[in-house]
Amino acid sequence: MASKHKKRKVVLASGVFDLLHLGHVKFLEEAKKAGGKNAELIVIIARDSTVEKTKGSKPIMPESQRRTLVESLKVVDEAVLGFENFDIGEVIEKIKPDIIALGYDQTAMEKQVREYVNKHGLNVQVVRVSKFEEDELSSSSKIRQKIVEKFAR
Amino acid sequence: MASKHKKRKVVLASGVFDLLHLGHVKFLEEAKKAGGKNAELIVIIARDSTVEKTKGSKPIMPESQRRTLVESLKVVDEAVLGFENFDIGEVIEKIKPDIIALGYDQTAMEKQVREYVNKHGLNVQVVRVSKFEEDELSSSSKIRQKIVEKFAR
Repeated sequence: MASKHKKRKVVLASGVFDLLHLGHVKFLEEAKKAGGKNAELIVIIARDSTVEKTKGSKPIMPESQRRTLVESLKVVDEAVLGFENFDIGEVIEKIKPDIIALGYDQTAMEKQVREYVNKHGLNVQVVRVSKFEEDELSSSSKIRQKIVEKFAR
Repeated sequence: MASKHKKRKVVLASGVFDLLHLGHVKFLEEAKKAGGKNAELIVIIARDSTVEKTKGSKPIMPESQRRTLVESLKVVDEAVLGFENFDIGEVIEKIKPDIIALGYDQTAMEKQVREYVNKHGLNVQVVRVSKFEEDELSSSSKIRQKIVEKFAR
């Protein structure tokens, strides 16, 4: 007999979420859907230091603001700052997700996640969310570019 | 005897909400608080055409994206696009708010609202929300400036 109260599935997503835009919200909505009804969506926000290491410079918005803004979205149950020294294994052990959702541009992260999950034989589903294509302003870099074109002299 | 089920107070706030940041969210949270427990927060999103008329150029993010993003915030019950020819009277007659909340920089709007409310003897409370001062990135113009300084060559 199936249990009357099914455990809520925990979906984990992560990202920088600098200059919050509709593409971010659509990604998070699709991620949560992967966990079915009553899924819980936990979002890891990349630390300023991690972004600086991987992209060469810090985000426009500081990490505390990025975290609070993401957590203020209806679709998000909890947003937490990542570890200073990012380690996917530590994140998985701590959050214990049922599903890890990855955005269209998170290919390096997907590789790390799949390797870790396979190596440790974990029962974690890895889901790829496709890009939201409504218009050209659903990427932080394109928003930055439009601002620079408009305001730089 | 007081009614057991008090009517939810409707709070109306408005703005452009281009480049959504924590200052916007804090403003909306304070606005909703003014309506007490169970308040309903309705947000009018300024049309691209209205912003172009009043500020000389359109916002970075198109109106449909600004509306959807604001409505995806936990604190917001409903976000609606403003009228093409903005008229505070029409807005008040349509939404019938108990409270109109104004941000620190909405002085022109405050004047219009107070004049309309007084002239028509309406029972609408006008509330001014003070500026959120956590740090320097709680304004769209400062975010734009930081982006331009960082990326323009």
